[in-house]
Amino acid sequence: MHLSEITHPNQLHGLSVRQLQQIARQIRDKHLQTVAATGGHLGPGLGVVELTLGLYQTLDLDRDKVIWDVGHQAYPHKLITGRYSDFHTLRQKDGVAGYLKRCESKFDHFGAGHASTSISAALGMAMARDMQGEKFKVVAVIGDGALTGGMALEAINHAGHLPKTNLLVVLNDNEMSISPNVGAIPRYLNKMRLSPPMQFITDNFEEQFKHIPFVGDELGRIKEGMKRLAVPKVGAVFEELGFTYMGPVDGHNLEELIATFQQAHQITGPVLVHVATVKGKGYEIAEKDQVGYHAQNPFNLATGKAIPSSKPKPPAYAKVFSHTLVKLAEQNPKIVGITAAMATGTGLDKLQAKLPNQYIDVGIAEQHAVTLAAGLACEGMRPVAAIYSTFLQRAYDQIIHDVCIQNLPVFFCLDRAGIVGADGPTHQGMYDISYLRCIPNMVLMAPKDEAELQRMVVTGVEYTDGPIAMRFPRGNGYGVPLMEEGWEPLEIGKAEILRNGDDLLIIGYGTMVYPAMQTAEILSEHGIEATVINGRFAKPLDTELILPLAEKIGRVVTLEEGCVIGGFGSAVAEALLDADIVVPVKRIGIPDELVDHATPEESKVELGLTSQQIADRIMQAYFKKQASAVV
Amino acid sequence: MHLSEITHPNQLHGLSVRQLQQIARQIRDKHLQTVAATGGHLGPGLGVVELTLGLYQTLDLDRDKVIWDVGHQAYPHKLITGRYSDFHTLRQKDGVAGYLKRCESKFDHFGAGHASTSISAALGMAMARDMQGEKFKVVAVIGDGALTGGMALEAINHAGHLPKTNLLVVLNDNEMSISPNVGAIPRYLNKMRLSPPMQFITDNFEEQFKHIPFVGDELGRIKEGMKRLAVPKVGAVFEELGFTYMGPVDGHNLEELIATFQQAHQITGPVLVHVATVKGKGYEIAEKDQVGYHAQNPFNLATGKAIPSSKPKPPAYAKVFSHTLVKLAEQNPKIVGITAAMATGTGLDKLQAKLPNQYIDVGIAEQHAVTLAAGLACEGMRPVAAIYSTFLQRAYDQIIHDVCIQNLPVFFCLDRAGIVGADGPTHQGMYDISYLRCIPNMVLMAPKDEAELQRMVVTGVEYTDGPIAMRFPRGNGYGVPLMEEGWEPLEIGKAEILRNGDDLLIIGYGTMVYPAMQTAEILSEHGIEATVINGRFAKPLDTELILPLAEKIGRVVTLEEGCVIGGFGSAVAEALLDADIVVPVKRIGIPDELVDHATPEESKVELGLTSQQIADRIMQAYFKKQASAVV
Repeated sequence: MHLSEITHPNQLHGLSVRQLQQIARQIRDKHLQTVAATGGHLGPGLGVVELTLGLYQTLDLDRDKVIWDVGHQAYPHKLITGRYSDFHTLRQKDGVAGYLKRCESKFDHFGAGHASTSISAALGMAMARDMQGEKFKVVAVIGDGALTGGMALEAINHAGHLPKTNLLVVLNDNEMSISPNVGAIPRYLNKMRLSPPMQFITDNFEEQFKHIPFVGDELGRIKEGMKRLAVPKVGAVFEELGFTYMGPVDGHNLEELIATFQQAHQITGPVLVHVATVKGKGYEIAEKDQVGYHAQNPFNLATGKAIPSSKPKPPAYAKVFSHTLVKLAEQNPKIVGITAAMATGTGLDKLQAKLPNQYIDVGIAEQHAVTLAAGLACEGMRPVAAIYSTFLQRAYDQIIHDVCIQNLPVFFCLDRAGIVGADGPTHQGMYDISYLRCIPNMVLMAPKDEAELQRMVVTGVEYTDGPIAMRFPRGNGYGVPLMEEGWEPLEIGKAEILRNGDDLLIIGYGTMVYPAMQTAEILSEHGIEATVINGRFAKPLDTELILPLAEKIGRVVTLEEGCVIGGFGSAVAEALLDADIVVPVKRIGIPDELVDHATPEESKVELGLTSQQIADRIMQAYFKKQASAVV
Repeated sequence: MHLSEITHPNQLHGLSVRQLQQIARQIRDKHLQTVAATGGHLGPGLGVVELTLGLYQTLDLDRDKVIWDVGHQAYPHKLITGRYSDFHTLRQKDGVAGYLKRCESKFDHFGAGHASTSISAALGMAMARDMQGEKFKVVAVIGDGALTGGMALEAINHAGHLPKTNLLVVLNDNEMSISPNVGAIPRYLNKMRLSPPMQFITDNFEEQFKHIPFVGDELGRIKEGMKRLAVPKVGAVFEELGFTYMGPVDGHNLEELIATFQQAHQITGPVLVHVATVKGKGYEIAEKDQVGYHAQNPFNLATGKAIPSSKPKPPAYAKVFSHTLVKLAEQNPKIVGITAAMATGTGLDKLQAKLPNQYIDVGIAEQHAVTLAAGLACEGMRPVAAIYSTFLQRAYDQIIHDVCIQNLPVFFCLDRAGIVGADGPTHQGMYDISYLRCIPNMVLMAPKDEAELQRMVVTGVEYTDGPIAMRFPRGNGYGVPLMEEGWEPLEIGKAEILRNGDDLLIIGYGTMVYPAMQTAEILSEHGIEATVINGRFAKPLDTELILPLAEKIGRVVTLEEGCVIGGFGSAVAEALLDADIVVPVKRIGIPDELVDHATPEESKVELGLTSQQIADRIMQAYFKKQASAVV
C-alpha cells in the first residue's frame, strides 16, 4: 500500500511493522517535499511519524479520538486522514491549514495552534463520554515543552484525581520547544530519558532480599516504607500525581510503540506514555539544527538552504526590535528581556548571545512571564516582556492584576500584532488593542515603520511611570534609514501630522499609517484632500491634536490592523463623543470575524484593507459624488 | 509586650517562644473581633498566625521580603506591620484593605487578591536581587489550593531550574481552597501530611545494609539505582523539580517552625517548606466549619451566627442563578456545571448536592476549566462555566482559542460582574464586556433583575449556535417574582422598550436598567421625557430597535456597570457610527480608573452612578437650560 491510498487511518490496521515503516518513509518524503516547497513546520512532524502510525494502529479512529497539542506536529496525522492529495496546498489560502481545525476533518477533534491545551480538551471529552455512558478512547499528544504551560499542569492535576476516567496522555518528548526547553520539568524528563528503566528494583525487591538473613523486621520496615512512598521508579512525579507512567519508549521503534500503546489501553484511569523522539528525525540537516528547522520558509531539500527571495527585503520588524533592544541593554544593565520559549521568534536570542545575564527564558509560561516581570519591576529592573500579541492573551489576568493595578513599569513588546498570514486564526494578533485599552494605567503605542519602532523601544525602556505596550507586525519594514544610537524617546500620548487637507481627517495607527498616506494620495487624485495623522498612541490618545482637527474637518476615518470592536477607532470615537464633538467616524480595521490562513496580502484584500479599497470605501461613505464621477 | 506596641515586625526578634505565643493569642483575638464586626476573611488568617510569627522572627524585614499569595491570609501580617490601630477599618472605605496593597505598607511587597501569583513575583524579585548584586531573602507564602493554579506550577518549573537563586516557598497546607481541594497535587500533599517523615530510609540506607553479606555487587546496584532516582523520600515531586523539600512541619508549633525556617535560610537554591496548618485555628466554630468560615459577614463571636440584617433582603443573584440552573439540570442531563474552586461562591454547591454527576470542580484552574468545557461541548454536553468576571480574565486565551475560534457552545456565567465592594480593585468585575465583546462568535447578555436572570439561564442553556456569556452582579436582586418553571428563552440580540419619551434615549445594560428607569423618572420631573431601553444583549446589539430610535430622538445615553472603554456604550456608539447615524452618545459607566474597596453604594456615589447623579450629568450634557432652572 502506498501512502496516497490511505484516506482513513483505520487502513493501517492490517499492516505489518515493515509495511508501516514503508508508510513512515513515504510520510517523511511527502512532508519534506511539501514543506520545502510551501514552507511550514518541519521538525515537529518528522519527529512523530512512528508515534502517529504506532498509536493509530492501536486505535479505532471511527470512534477513538486523538487530540494533538499545538497542531504543528500533526502533519503526519493529516497525511493519513484524507489530506494527502491536497497537502501541496499547505498553509496557502483555501488550502490545508498549518494547524488543526475541526472544520477541516472529522479526525481533527479539537483545533489547536497555541500550546498546552490538549489534556484539558481531551479530559473534557473523556468526562463527557463517561457521563453519557459511551465507550471510546481519548488520547492527548503533548510535547515536553507544552507540558510546562500552566494549563497543561492544571489538567494533569485534575486528571490525576480521577482514577476511573480513562485518558491516555502521550508525552512527545523531543527535548525542545522551539528552542531547547528550560525548566525543572524538562530537566526531569531528560533525566528519565538518560536513565535505564528502574522498575527492576521494585519489581525484584522482594525476590532479591528474601534470602538474606535480616535482623528483626528490617526488611519489613524497609518494604513498608518503600510501598508507602510508592515512588522509587522512573516517572515518580507522574505516578504521585495519579497517572500510570510508562516509558521512556523509543519514539522511532514501531514495535515498542505499538506494544506500549496496547498495554496502555488496558489500564484504567489516566496513563502517561513517555515517548522519546528526535525532532527532525530522518532529515539529517534538521536533526542537527533543531532550532533552525522547527519551521522553515521554502528551502532546497538537498542543501537545507532557504531559497533566496528574488530581491533583498528591508529588515524585519522583529530584527530591528531585537537589535535596538540589545543596543539599549548594553548601555543599561537594568534592562532584562523576557521570553516565553520564543527566543528566536522574538529576536531575544540576540540578547541572550550578547548579554546572557539580562535575558530570561521562562519556557511556555506566559502567565509566569508577566508576573515575574512585575516582580523584577518592583526591584528596579526594566523588564521587557517580548510576547506575541496572540500569546499575551494567556497572561491577561496577570497584566491586569499584577502589573496594571499596581502600576508597575513593565514594557510589553507585542510582535505579530495584526494579520499574521499562514498561521491562521489561532495566531492572528487581532485583539490586543481592545483587550489592553480597557485596563487603567496602560499606555499603548504602535510604530508606523521600523525607524519609529526604534524610538518606541527607547520610549518604552525610559518610561517608568507604569506599564506600557508596543505592538508591531510580523514581517518586514519599509527600508527606512535606521539609527545606530542617539534615539530620542517620544512624548507619551503625542501623535504626528503627516499631511494637511481640509476634506477629511485620516488617523492611522501603526502599520496602517503608510496605507493612510497612500490612501490620501489616491483620494487627492479625485480632488479630495485629507489630513493624515500618525496616531502613535492608542492610549492616551492625543486628543489635543485630534479633537480640534476632527471638529474642524468634520469627517473622520480611522485605520488600524486590529479588530474594530473596541479598537483604536473606537478610542477616537469615544474621545470625540466624550468631548461633545458629534462628527461621523468611519472605523476601518478587521471586522468582527475570524481571519483564515492566507498570505497577509491576500487577507488584506479580503478584508478591504488595501489603500485602493480603503480609498473606495471612504469615497463611498463620504464622497459619493466623486466616487460615482470616477465610476 | 502587647501586640498594640508592635509597629515593625523586627520587634519580634528578641521574643521567646512563650512571648510569641502570647502575641499569637492577641492576634487571634484582634482578628476575630475585627472580622466579627466588619466581616472579612476569617479562617485563612487564623491558620497562619504561628507561621507568620515564626517566619518573621527568622527574617530581617527591613531587607527581606515576604510575598503573600492571595492576601486574604495576611491579616496577621497586617497586625504586626503597623496596621493594628487602624484594623477596625478593615475592608471599609478608606480603611485597611482586605487584601495586600503596595501603597498601604512598605511591608506589602506585592499586591494580591487572585491566587497563585506569589512564586512568580517572588522569583522576579529574587532574580532582580541577584542581577543587582544585592543580598536579602525572598519568601513566597502560598496555599495548597493556590498551588494547583497553573501559573504557580509554571513558577515552580522555572524556579526549580535555577539552583543558585535563593528562594523560599512556604507552602501553607490547610487542605482547603475555599472548599476542600480537588486534584492530584492536594492529594499528594495530604498523603505527605499523613506519612511520618521517611528520610530515615535513605539516610540510614548504607548503615542498615553494610553488615549484610550480599552476593556480588547487589548492594552497589541498588544503592546506585536509588541514588540516581533520588526520590525515595517525602517531597519527592518537589525534589525532582529542583526544590529542597522540608516538612511537613506542624504549622502551630512555633519551635518547630522557627527551627525549620532557620535551617531553610541556610540552603542554596529554591527551598519548599511544607507547613501543615488548620484553617480557622483557635476558633473552634471556624475549625469545624472551614468552608462556612473562610470569610464571613459580621457575626456573633460567641455563637458564630451571622448578625441578621435589619430587614429581610431579596434573594441574591447567585442564589437565583444556582436555583435555576439546578432546576434546568434536573430536566436536562446534558447540563454540566463547572467551577474553579468556587463551589459556594457560585452556588454550584447546590448542583453538587443534587446532581453530583453534572458538577465538576477543577480546583483553582480557570484556564483548564474553560478548555475542559470546550471539550465537553465537543461531545454534546451543555457546559456551564460559572466563573466570576474577575477570574475569567485568567482564561482569556482559552475563551478565544478553544471556545470562540471553534464556535463551541459553552455558556459562561460571570457572577460578581460590576462593582464588588469590599474586595477592592483586584476583584472588580469591570472589564468583561470589553474583553469579551471583541471576540468573534461571542454572545453577551446581562439581566436587568433576578427574574430576567432566570430567563437568561434558560437562554444560555438552550443556545447551541456558539459561545454565550451572561454577566450578573454581586449582591441581591430587587425582590421581583420568580418562576419555578416554564421560563421561555429570550430571543438572541433583542432588547426591550420599558418607557417612551421623545427627548432622550437611555439604554441601560444589566444592573443599570433599573437606575435608567429611576433616572427617567427624575428627568420627567424636570419635563424631560426619556425612552428607556433594556439593552439585554451587548452582542449582538439590537440595532433594529436602537438605531431608528436613536436617530429619531437624537440624544443617547448609555448606562453600564463596567468600564466605559470598549464597553456597552461603545457598542452602541460603534453601531450608530457604522450606520451613519451621527448623534451624541453619553457613555456612563466606570471611568478609566481603579475602583478601591468600599461598599458598592459608596463606590457608585464616587463614580457618579446613582440615579440622581446620572440625571444631573444628563441634564448638564443635554439640557443645560432645565438644569440651570433647577439650580
